[in-house]
Amino acid sequence: MSELSVNHLLGIKYLNKKDIALIFETADHFKEVINRSIKKVPTLRDTTIANIFFENSTRTRLSFELAEKRLSADVVNFSAGQSSVKKGETLIDTVNNILSMKVDLVVMRHPNPGAGIFLSKHVKAAIVNAGDGAHEHPTQALLDSYSIREKLGDVGGKNVVIVGDILHSRVALSNIFALKLQGANVKVCGPKTLMPKYIESLGVTVETNLKKALEWCDVANMLRVQHERMDISYFPSIREYTQQFGVNRQLLDSLDKQIVIMHPGPINRGVEITSDVADSDQSIILHQVENGVAIRMAVLYLLASKIQ
Amino acid sequence: MSELSVNHLLGIKYLNKKDIALIFETADHFKEVINRSIKKVPTLRDTTIANIFFENSTRTRLSFELAEKRLSADVVNFSAGQSSVKKGETLIDTVNNILSMKVDLVVMRHPNPGAGIFLSKHVKAAIVNAGDGAHEHPTQALLDSYSIREKLGDVGGKNVVIVGDILHSRVALSNIFALKLQGANVKVCGPKTLMPKYIESLGVTVETNLKKALEWCDVANMLRVQHERMDISYFPSIREYTQQFGVNRQLLDSLDKQIVIMHPGPINRGVEITSDVADSDQSIILHQVENGVAIRMAVLYLLASKIQ
Amino acid sequence: MSELSVNHLLGIKYLNKKDIALIFETADHFKEVINRSIKKVPTLRDTTIANIFFENSTRTRLSFELAEKRLSADVVNFSAGQSSVKKGETLIDTVNNILSMKVDLVVMRHPNPGAGIFLSKHVKAAIVNAGDGAHEHPTQALLDSYSIREKLGDVGGKNVVIVGDILHSRVALSNIFALKLQGANVKVCGPKTLMPKYIESLGVTVETNLKKALEWCDVANMLRVQHERMDISYFPSIREYTQQFGVNRQLLDSLDKQIVIMHPGPINRGVEITSDVADSDQSIILHQVENGVAIRMAVLYLLASKIQ
Repeated sequence: MSELSVNHLLGIKYLNKKDIALIFETADHFKEVINRSIKKVPTLRDTTIANIFFENSTRTRLSFELAEKRLSADVVNFSAGQSSVKKGETLIDTVNNILSMKVDLVVMRHPNPGAGIFLSKHVKAAIVNAGDGAHEHPTQALLDSYSIREKLGDVGGKNVVIVGDILHSRVALSNIFALKLQGANVKVCGPKTLMPKYIESLGVTVETNLKKALEWCDVANMLRVQHERMDISYFPSIREYTQQFGVNRQLLDSLDKQIVIMHPGPINRGVEITSDVADSDQSIILHQVENGVAIRMAVLYLLASKIQ
Repeated sequence: MSELSVNHLLGIKYLNKKDIALIFETADHFKEVINRSIKKVPTLRDTTIANIFFENSTRTRLSFELAEKRLSADVVNFSAGQSSVKKGETLIDTVNNILSMKVDLVVMRHPNPGAGIFLSKHVKAAIVNAGDGAHEHPTQALLDSYSIREKLGDVGGKNVVIVGDILHSRVALSNIFALKLQGANVKVCGPKTLMPKYIESLGVTVETNLKKALEWCDVANMLRVQHERMDISYFPSIREYTQQFGVNRQLLDSLDKQIVIMHPGPINRGVEITSDVADSDQSIILHQVENGVAIRMAVLYLLASKIQ
Repeated sequence: MSELSVNHLLGIKYLNKKDIALIFETADHFKEVINRSIKKVPTLRDTTIANIFFENSTRTRLSFELAEKRLSADVVNFSAGQSSVKKGETLIDTVNNILSMKVDLVVMRHPNPGAGIFLSKHVKAAIVNAGDGAHEHPTQALLDSYSIREKLGDVGGKNVVIVGDILHSRVALSNIFALKLQGANVKVCGPKTLMPKYIESLGVTVETNLKKALEWCDVANMLRVQHERMDISYFPSIREYTQQFGVNRQLLDSLDKQIVIMHPGPINRGVEITSDVADSDQSIILHQVENGVAIRMAVLYLLASKIQ
């Protein structure tokens, strides 16, 4: 029987092509089960999962929690603001304490890049990285690729453009790793000040003209603008961002093909994309959310099966 | 078999008399089950319910959560301060995202009147309004009427006075609709500045003299004073409010009959009612809380049975 | 069959020696079950437990929640900042409301000493004190003694020193009661300004010289420094505290025996103890956390069995 090559999901960087295929097949199975209105499978009945969130998150936490409950796992939630990370105990103490309570799997979001990697070296229990600073957000990238595969049949050979603040985005980085691994062609598009210097070393090309990027692509993944990062040093204003990198109906209609629109949410309607784009048939945004639960069920199931 | 005339519980305004009777009969059943110390029924085992609270609430959220757990539903909680409503995504995006995760029922509290109605038009899934601004709080009104029926045998024909800030109270509005629908006689009593202009069009009469109101009524429902609203423009002071509209032992004893005292909680002891009134045999305040769980079980059960 | 002499766990002060022995035997049983990887027992399937925390707590709340879930109880959580205690309803109203929802057991943390005792006199349902101000934290003391017994075979006759801010510590007070009850010899060690005046009336001796205390003891329980209390009126500075009352490797190696190091967590690494001490073989800190779940399962089980 197939199993993952890794014991943790720390980043897409650590997966191979077979791992992704296995996660997708497993997610197919869970999605089919959910669609038959079977809300719960007894798969992880004897597994305790701790969701440890050192950063606010509603949708990712909720998606993991639903995935865990549908697998019949026991779930404990631990939420700590960033402030308590600063003042309080060290990361390893927090998690060791939680592990002493006999938790099997830890799903962790942390503001520091590499927090999950550090942990996995020091604690027993499988770690799932639910976002570590500007580093990786592997389950988001997996659900994004899975949604492309669902819509277009395959990821390999497709042209995908990622639009926005590439510099600060863990979603972008994980997506680049996942898409390249599966043989997609990837461009990134966004303000030059929000483009990391190493970007071309990842095998992607930079396109600063959105229209050209859209004409080239099959899929456009529109990143969320983080208002708090849009200060004067990076970029003039939200309005200018929208004029140069926002997608509206008119722009989409000017292309000679129907491209697929993705967004990791939450959308700033009227900034990255207009409402008529977000709610159109070309958008698979809600499928991304739906697939998120199936992908997370698959990841948790595959990691848990390596523990016993 | 009987079923509700509605697919959502958005307000008492949308129910008919039969609906209320059906909810009460169903609640009777669940209350009997709870009283036999059976804490859980498998009724909603395959139903996932999301509690989405955009306003702080402890008792209402807790009551819903207990009702859901006793029905064996899977429960996910989503709490967001009002601030995140303002800055963040739109209401419809939030809820659509949650629904993409295959949630069957949404229990929502929101600061905006009509938020539930808006939602019910745009998303699949049954919506239960757990309070929408100063508009309606239908499960509170149902549990209030249910508690009157339990204490006095019937709601029809009874004289009920609602005392307090009628202008800002969703509890008052939902109670007026529910009581009138069941044939009760309703008076409202409170400061003139806290009385809506349309109030008599609802078929209730205004009585500004508390003693006269109490002499007339079988039941007095004492609304909670919201300190934050008691500013100079509405009313002089809390002390003055208490002198004119607070109920104490002496006042109750001066009446020639035993009236029933209700309060939706949390009580400001010594403001709306004194402790010797709150804790007396005439008070059914704790029965209201207890009945809240049974009523919410009934509502969730009846709505869920319309989904499949 | 044995049962507890009390209906609530309000403090160690109210327990007798047999109660502690019974709790430990029951915890042994649950610990064995957990170690066989059986994550859940159906023991409290029909019991609803409310965790009511009026003070922030992550580890204690989490430990209780895990204990409750492993016993298959239904769990509802109620967290309220201290501010809402001040402005809002009275403690008795809060809890009465929760009890009206038919909760069997209440686990409560509250900033006021005696809050649990007050409650137990006014509400039905068994109360477990999860910390009441500077008064008691009985489950912490039980898990501490249980961990000593596990490590050293017995608590009776052992020399235990508690180091730190004895004046403000509920952990210290509960530990003193528990240790004395079981026949241990207890010293306290810390700054004179953080030593309560009545301390010797509890049958413990004060030792202000840490080295002498360590030379005497079998076990050193290092209390957490509460930075917010370390202001000028009590003590000069954290640095001075660490110099006089912190334990490091060098100090431990200077003793002619291997003492056991305990800490209730979370550790201020480098303040109460250095990392090489915290992570050494002499430290049983993680066993304390692990035993916390088994002890809490035992307490909840034994109290619940007195309800029916």
